[in-house]
Amino acid sequence: MDAIWWHIFDLLGTTAFAVSGVFAALSRRMDLFGIFVLSAATAVGGGIIRDILIGNIPPAAFKNSIYLWIIVGSIVVVTLTVRYFNIRMWRRFMSHLSALYLLCDAIGLGSFTVTGTLLGCYYYPDYWILDITLGVLTAVGGGVIRDVLAGRIPVVLRTEVYATASLLGSVLLYGAVIPFEVPFEVGAIVSFSVTVAIRLVAIRFHLNVPRIRRKKQGSSF
Amino acid sequence: MDAIWWHIFDLLGTTAFAVSGVFAALSRRMDLFGIFVLSAATAVGGGIIRDILIGNIPPAAFKNSIYLWIIVGSIVVVTLTVRYFNIRMWRRFMSHLSALYLLCDAIGLGSFTVTGTLLGCYYYPDYWILDITLGVLTAVGGGVIRDVLAGRIPVVLRTEVYATASLLGSVLLYGAVIPFEVPFEVGAIVSFSVTVAIRLVAIRFHLNVPRIRRKKQGSSF
Amino acid sequence: MDAIWWHIFDLLGTTAFAVSGVFAALSRRMDLFGIFVLSAATAVGGGIIRDILIGNIPPAAFKNSIYLWIIVGSIVVVTLTVRYFNIRMWRRFMSHLSALYLLCDAIGLGSFTVTGTLLGCYYYPDYWILDITLGVLTAVGGGVIRDVLAGRIPVVLRTEVYATASLLGSVLLYGAVIPFEVPFEVGAIVSFSVTVAIRLVAIRFHLNVPRIRRKKQGSSF
Repeated sequence: MDAIWWHIFDLLGTTAFAVSGVFAALSRRMDLFGIFVLSAATAVGGGIIRDILIGNIPPAAFKNSIYLWIIVGSIVVVTLTVRYFNIRMWRRFMSHLSALYLLCDAIGLGSFTVTGTLLGCYYYPDYWILDITLGVLTAVGGGVIRDVLAGRIPVVLRTEVYATASLLGSVLLYGAVIPFEVPFEVGAIVSFSVTVAIRLVAIRFHLNVPRIRRKKQGSSF
Repeated sequence: MDAIWWHIFDLLGTTAFAVSGVFAALSRRMDLFGIFVLSAATAVGGGIIRDILIGNIPPAAFKNSIYLWIIVGSIVVVTLTVRYFNIRMWRRFMSHLSALYLLCDAIGLGSFTVTGTLLGCYYYPDYWILDITLGVLTAVGGGVIRDVLAGRIPVVLRTEVYATASLLGSVLLYGAVIPFEVPFEVGAIVSFSVTVAIRLVAIRFHLNVPRIRRKKQGSSF
Repeated sequence: MDAIWWHIFDLLGTTAFAVSGVFAALSRRMDLFGIFVLSAATAVGGGIIRDILIGNIPPAAFKNSIYLWIIVGSIVVVTLTVRYFNIRMWRRFMSHLSALYLLCDAIGLGSFTVTGTLLGCYYYPDYWILDITLGVLTAVGGGVIRDVLAGRIPVVLRTEVYATASLLGSVLLYGAVIPFEVPFEVGAIVSFSVTVAIRLVAIRFHLNVPRIRRKKQGSSF
C-alpha cells in the first residue's frame, strides 16, 4: 500500500470531520467540553470502530498524537474565528455555515471511505464484505457516534444519500484494486472523487434513496 | 461442539431477526438503505458484539457472506411481498404483521441465546458469567443497536419479559452442558424451546418483570 | 503497579457506580431487570470499553464474579432499604437521595479515573493520549452507556464539570507517575481526591465549563 496516499486521505478526513463536528456543536450552543467531544467523536470515532473490528489494538487514534492536535487546532481556529468575527462578516459567515458544514462532511466521508476500504484490502484482501463494510463504517461511524451522543437519530438513517455514497465509493475502490489490480493511489483518488461528487450532487438536487411503496395508495402502512 | 446444530441455530436466528428488522423498518416508512441497516443491525449486531468480547476478530459476520445473502434475501422477499400484495390480502397481512414480527423476534431471541451461550461454553467453560452474558448479549444486542439507531429506548429496558427469557434459557443451557454434561445438541434444543416459550407466553399474557414498590402508597418516588 | 491499591479503587468505584445506577433506575420507576441493566452498565460499562481498547479480552468484568456480586448486593441493599423504609424516614431519605446519588457518582468517577489511567500507564507508558483517554473513558463510559440505553443525552455532554474533573485527575496522575516517577499509590490517592473534590465543588457552586460566545450579543447563533 502506498502509505503516503493513505496518510493524506486520513489526515484530510480527520480535519474535515473535526471541523464539521465543531460546527455541529456550535450550532447546538454546547460548552467547550461538548465541542471537544463532538469534534473528537466525529473525527476519530469511525477509525476507532474500524481498528476494533480488525484487531488493531490500541486504536491508531490513541497512539499518534497528530489526531489530537488536528482536533484541538480545528476547535481553536473555528471558535476564534466565530468569537472575533465582526457583526457584518458574521452574518455573511452564518449564511454560509450550513454549506461549509456539508462540504466538510462530504470531504470527510470520501476520505474515510478510502482509508477504511484500503486498510481492509491490505490486511484481508479476500473478505470483500469486511473491506467494503470497513470503508462504510469508517466513513459513517464517527457521525453515528456524534448523533447518538447528541440524542439525535443518526444522519445515515435519515433519507439522504449519505452512506449510499460511501458504499458506492467503497465498492468501486475494492473492485478496482482487487480484481482489476488498479494501483492503490489511482483507485483511492477516483473513489474519493466519486464519493464526494455523489454526496454533493445528492445535496444539491435533494436526491433520496427510493422508498418501498405499495402499488395502490390507500390504507396507511 | 456439534457444529451442525450451532450453525442451524445461527442461520435460523439470523433469518428471523433479519425479517423482524425489515418489518420494523417498513412500519417506520424507512427508505431502502434504512431497511438494510435495521435488518443487518438486528441480524448480525448481537453476533458482532459477541465476537468482539471473545476476541474473534474480524467478526464472523464479515468473513462469511452467507449472512449478507440472508439479509438481502429477507429484504427482497418481504418487500416484494408487501409491494405486490393486492389490497384485500394486504389488509389481512397487516392485521397479522405485529404477530409475525413478535414471532420472528422470539425465534431469533431463542436461537441467539443458544449460539452465544454455546460459543462461550466451548471457548471459556470456566467463566460462567461470561458464557451467560454472551448468550444474553448475542440475543438482545442486535435489538439494542437497532433501537438506539432508530432513536428509541431499547426494547430490553421496557417492561416486557424479553432479556429475562434469554437469561433463563442461557442459565439452563450453561447449567445443563457444563455441570451436568448434557450433550450440547440436547441442551441447545431444550434451551431454545424454553426461551421461545417463555417469550411467547409473556406476550400472550402481558407478563412483566416485577417492579420495586414501597409498602405504603403515598408520596411519589 | 501496586496491585492492592488498584483493586481497592476498582472495587470502590464499582460499588459507588452500582449504587448510583440503582438510584437512577429507581427514580425512573424501572422494573427489576431495568434496575439490573442500569446498575451493571454503570458499574462495569466503562471497564469493558477500557478492556476492549487495550485488548484485554474477555473483559475483566466477565472473568471475575466479584463484580456481579457487588452489583447484586447493591441492588438488594438499596431496594430492600427503599421497600421497607417507614414513611417518616422515607421522606427524609428522599430529600437526601439526590445528594447521595451525586456523592456515589463522584466517588465512582474518581476511582475509575485512577484505575483506567494506571492500567494505561502500566501497559503503555509511552502513549500519553491513550493513558489519559483510558482514565476518562473508564470513568465516564458507564454513565454514557446508561444514559444512551435510557434514551437521555449523556451527562458528560450536558453543561456540568464532569468529564473535565476526570480529565484533570487523569492528567495529574499521568504527569505524576510517568515523568516525575511518583509512586503509583501516592499518585492514585492524590488523583482520586482531586477528581472527587473538583466534581463536588462544581456541584456545590454550579460551576460549568465556559461556553464559546460571540463578542456582541445580537443575532442568535
